[in-house]
Amino acid sequence: MSDLFDTIVSLCKQRGFIFQSSEIYGGQAATYDYGPLGVELKRNVKDLWWQEMVYGHGDVVGLDAAIMMHPKTWEASGHTEAFNDPLIDDKASNHRYRADELIEDHIRDLRQDGDMEQAEAVYERLVAALNSDDMAGNLYDIIQDEEIRAPRSGAFDWTPVRQFNLMFETHVGPVAETGDRIFLRPETAQGIFVNFQNVREPARQHVPFGIAQIGKAFRNEIVARQFVFRMREFEQMEMQYFVKPGEQLDFFAEWREKRMAWHKRLGVRPSKLRFHEHEQLSHYADAAEDIQYEYPIGWKEVEGIHSRTDYDLKRHQEYSGKNMTYYDPFEQEKYIPYVVETSVGLDRTVLMLLCDAYDEDEANGNERTVLRFHPEVAPIRAAIFPLSKKKGLPDIAHDIEADLRPHFNVMYDERGSMGKRYRRMDEAGTPFCITVDFDTLDDQQVTVRDRDSMEQDRVAIDQLTAYINDHSTGWSREDV
Amino acid sequence: MSDLFDTIVSLCKQRGFIFQSSEIYGGQAATYDYGPLGVELKRNVKDLWWQEMVYGHGDVVGLDAAIMMHPKTWEASGHTEAFNDPLIDDKASNHRYRADELIEDHIRDLRQDGDMEQAEAVYERLVAALNSDDMAGNLYDIIQDEEIRAPRSGAFDWTPVRQFNLMFETHVGPVAETGDRIFLRPETAQGIFVNFQNVREPARQHVPFGIAQIGKAFRNEIVARQFVFRMREFEQMEMQYFVKPGEQLDFFAEWREKRMAWHKRLGVRPSKLRFHEHEQLSHYADAAEDIQYEYPIGWKEVEGIHSRTDYDLKRHQEYSGKNMTYYDPFEQEKYIPYVVETSVGLDRTVLMLLCDAYDEDEANGNERTVLRFHPEVAPIRAAIFPLSKKKGLPDIAHDIEADLRPHFNVMYDERGSMGKRYRRMDEAGTPFCITVDFDTLDDQQVTVRDRDSMEQDRVAIDQLTAYINDHSTGWSREDV
Repeated sequence: MSDLFDTIVSLCKQRGFIFQSSEIYGGQAATYDYGPLGVELKRNVKDLWWQEMVYGHGDVVGLDAAIMMHPKTWEASGHTEAFNDPLIDDKASNHRYRADELIEDHIRDLRQDGDMEQAEAVYERLVAALNSDDMAGNLYDIIQDEEIRAPRSGAFDWTPVRQFNLMFETHVGPVAETGDRIFLRPETAQGIFVNFQNVREPARQHVPFGIAQIGKAFRNEIVARQFVFRMREFEQMEMQYFVKPGEQLDFFAEWREKRMAWHKRLGVRPSKLRFHEHEQLSHYADAAEDIQYEYPIGWKEVEGIHSRTDYDLKRHQEYSGKNMTYYDPFEQEKYIPYVVETSVGLDRTVLMLLCDAYDEDEANGNERTVLRFHPEVAPIRAAIFPLSKKKGLPDIAHDIEADLRPHFNVMYDERGSMGKRYRRMDEAGTPFCITVDFDTLDDQQVTVRDRDSMEQDRVAIDQLTAYINDHSTGWSREDV
Repeated sequence: MSDLFDTIVSLCKQRGFIFQSSEIYGGQAATYDYGPLGVELKRNVKDLWWQEMVYGHGDVVGLDAAIMMHPKTWEASGHTEAFNDPLIDDKASNHRYRADELIEDHIRDLRQDGDMEQAEAVYERLVAALNSDDMAGNLYDIIQDEEIRAPRSGAFDWTPVRQFNLMFETHVGPVAETGDRIFLRPETAQGIFVNFQNVREPARQHVPFGIAQIGKAFRNEIVARQFVFRMREFEQMEMQYFVKPGEQLDFFAEWREKRMAWHKRLGVRPSKLRFHEHEQLSHYADAAEDIQYEYPIGWKEVEGIHSRTDYDLKRHQEYSGKNMTYYDPFEQEKYIPYVVETSVGLDRTVLMLLCDAYDEDEANGNERTVLRFHPEVAPIRAAIFPLSKKKGLPDIAHDIEADLRPHFNVMYDERGSMGKRYRRMDEAGTPFCITVDFDTLDDQQVTVRDRDSMEQDRVAIDQLTAYINDHSTGWSREDV
């Protein structure tokens, strides 16, 4: 991991954004808790997504399906059979790797060495192996034939490849032996598919229309790592848009653009965002692209946009015996709709915002750490400081706090020097710091200090809400 | 269950508020999905709770801890050992009951029959049994001695009482046999306790202060029932307030009042809300009261306010070896804080709002069903109808929709007669229906129809946001 990434992880813990779950008990691996600042950042992202996807589209409605679904769901979706990671252990170091990722890294090395022909040949074997009935055996053969060594130990001493299902299982009912085995959902999408008719009819929607959902999903990742980038318990924001067969690629193109625009509106630097076309499509997909962000650990997927055809609805129709056909009363035709999906990782979005906002510069000759969040994303929109505890300044500051609270999440702070109070708010990414000073007693104005430029404006108290609103919506990453 | 309750459950399904999870596969027992209207109702409740608890209190901060916690957590909390339901089966009907609830019902019957002495004697035996080492055996003896019959079958033919742990277990790691056994959290509170120091320090809070959290919890209820009142997967909104030992009962009294006031602000009829003192306190509590709502199925707990002493922090200190002491820099003293908890069921709150809002009356000589939600709680704040599709009325209606969307969740509807459109919105609980008619073309005014009184106001288009805001905050349950 990069030094910068480590610095951000450490800031997250220290400032109360995100930290290891159950830390007092030594931590629960690949599971994290969001502290006071992290939970506000996450709330803002969820709200902005919901506003965009549901309130911003008259033809998209919300859903909140349960985590515990009927086990048949996962037979229909293919997760019971196919949702497996092929794992291999290096006997020398006891480190565990995903076999397909070892081979992908090997192909990348071949390409970097200019051996394009061999890279292509291994790539074709990899694709064939992943689509074969004996995935584990065929991946193992590639590793043996290519003499791929373990990255950490350099050894060439592997166990066989074994497959592990990534779904967490549990039992419903009085005793584990007799209770029904169920799974924690490994993705939120299926909750939308199985409810296609249950949502469409009461919502009186006609194709094309979408269903949006935010919720937790769980994967028993064996090689979980990279902070909140790959966790065992994570949150997704997904929208499934149901369209008439044949029109899916137009809608795919439309949602692809809309989703990229949303990330930019969060204030993320455009130069750090890119589309990435899938090299292999899932067998049911006819288009798929990722939106990637350049994290300090490299370009990584933050969102996927997929044209999934009618695979999901057809499978659920087959497994449930329930009709998933849509009848179009305007055109008088019947079909099973195609699906265009937008699926963004909430935790990955939060991590992207933290990485993108992180900056170091100088303030009054001292180094400072500052998180340059878009004001609408920042956990705390404004902090209010009385310059002194004398002459009733704290009372005025508390009055301002009370006035602003219905509009923004704000914080009152009267402890420490002004410099220290600014530093704390810079590290929290608070865009506006409002100071009540002795002049305020006369002119009913306060000093508003800008997080990014550190410039100060004198603003009338009764203009503060408007000032913050204007400077929030007008904020641009390019200006700072 | 009451007829009214059945009617509400059926309306929930039909209008897309709440329906059985995985319904196409026959349903997942005691698990429900929230449809488009339900998810908005739930979002509003969550937002109003967060605004009140976190933004409304400078000394309360948020947290979002993981569902999967370290298993030691549940040893410390006592859930591994004690979180059991005593169950008994009626052999005649194969129906399963909670043994303690059978006895409680029996005590109530004795009281109703005026046999106070016997009621008191059985009550004392029940308390002793619940605190004994052989809870199952002692509960069984009471049922035998009192000859308590099965409510449904009337039979007196019981199995022994058996205890089942209510926590769902699963395994983390590659294979179930070797992976670490963990539990899905049965309550959100422990995520707050284990993070007491991790939150307090970066948030720079001093006792007294609180930590608030909204999140899912899971209980393997054997006798799950009553719609979303008792589910296997449910959502809690909890706040733990940490106080100096000795001050807990004052804060208990304060939060008790504040929490009741919050329910009333949601628009719930005060006559349907009451406090209910716990008859038996948990061994670690020194005060506990419920806020109950009179559901159609009777008075039931919707929220609990508990003074939990220092039990939780002490136990986690003991089991983790980590210091849970707070040092007060102002008074220069050290102690483990006491805790006052407010714990409200989100699903129960939604169910309360649905039951409280449900009404039937007459509109134009026809019966109508109407949900009289507080406007700030209603899933859809306003609906916009063009009277006709002619003369550009839909365009004007869409413009109004776009203007209102940043402020409220609104809906556009141009299908069906005006009467039908009103009926649909009454059933969804939409407080304001805005109609664009031919006069609008001349006077730039629209008709706003009130859900409750069905009276109509003529309002200028550019005054709509202010009109809706005024009539929302001014709404009172007593006026309708």
